[in-house]
Amino acid sequence: MPAPALPSLAHIDLSSGIIDPAAEVVERRLSDMPAWFQDQPAAQALLSENPVLYRVYAMAQPDTAGWRLATSVIESGRIGAEYYMTRGHAHVREDAPEVYLTLRGRGMLVMQSRTDETVVQVMQPGSINYIPGGWAHRTVNTGDEPLVFFAVWSIDAGHDYEAYAERGFAKLILAGEDGPRVVDNPSYVKAKRA
Amino acid sequence: MPAPALPSLAHIDLSSGIIDPAAEVVERRLSDMPAWFQDQPAAQALLSENPVLYRVYAMAQPDTAGWRLATSVIESGRIGAEYYMTRGHAHVREDAPEVYLTLRGRGMLVMQSRTDETVVQVMQPGSINYIPGGWAHRTVNTGDEPLVFFAVWSIDAGHDYEAYAERGFAKLILAGEDGPRVVDNPSYVKAKRA
Repeated sequence: MPAPALPSLAHIDLSSGIIDPAAEVVERRLSDMPAWFQDQPAAQALLSENPVLYRVYAMAQPDTAGWRLATSVIESGRIGAEYYMTRGHAHVREDAPEVYLTLRGRGMLVMQSRTDETVVQVMQPGSINYIPGGWAHRTVNTGDEPLVFFAVWSIDAGHDYEAYAERGFAKLILAGEDGPRVVDNPSYVKAKRA
Repeated sequence: MPAPALPSLAHIDLSSGIIDPAAEVVERRLSDMPAWFQDQPAAQALLSENPVLYRVYAMAQPDTAGWRLATSVIESGRIGAEYYMTRGHAHVREDAPEVYLTLRGRGMLVMQSRTDETVVQVMQPGSINYIPGGWAHRTVNTGDEPLVFFAVWSIDAGHDYEAYAERGFAKLILAGEDGPRVVDNPSYVKAKRA
């Protein structure tokens, strides 16, 4: 029989988003995802500076824990007209959702079904976003301070980053004169229909 | 084939804890749980006033959503020396956890395994509590303002309130001269060992 699961406790600094104790901190710099941005000359020009785009702090938990808890902190900035964003991924398990609660900043959550439906939701302090299984998801900081949000997902959800590295998402979030705009991605490769 | 699950979005007022849109609001007054408190003369004396002890606001979601999202708002107050608290329950499914993120106030989370182990964790803004499946849980407002926390659980977790209505929890949280104290419950009925 497996050891019984034990309760665990951590603390989020609600301003910085840092979790203590954190088991793992993932840091993504521009050099980790230069091809993800539409404006390639702008991305190449910024590579020497190589800014941090986002960090993910995962709560320290026993191996027996079924759900993972983390904060993501996306820095404020742009590559050309495109805001700093996460790589984006889908869960392998179609019944594995993910939940976000935004703690600080402003952003947009881009979701995309396996049949190319797109839903874009706003993120601001107090927003709760429910991402059903089967929907790829990417978060974008459209504000002028860090976007900090809390996330919960199942440890057996499985993560598919590769499909979205190749295809991208159908919609881009670009800075416009009147704020962020949702526009079609001209280089998007549609999902293969089953 | 079931309809594909759709993303959903709601907003928490981070001060009041109210979710908009909320599908359901559960309100618990003293008359819903008078026998839950140790000091029965104090409970009976307060029944005519019948204060609200807590409310739960569940996010409006499609039926297809696999996880439930809610806020709980426990009012500040006492019945004798015992703080206002939730009834407490365990999940029927032993692999169904629950996650809390405290947004406002101060409290304690009392957890109890099926073999009578007890873990008490503090709750304060930024606390994240991970409650594994199989652990009964009750939240207690030990502060002088509402205790507001966000919760996530699986829709198929199953809720057992009855066992803890009869047995109570092994530990009580009572107000003392130096603040809240964790004390043995003199009328606690131990779990039957399988």
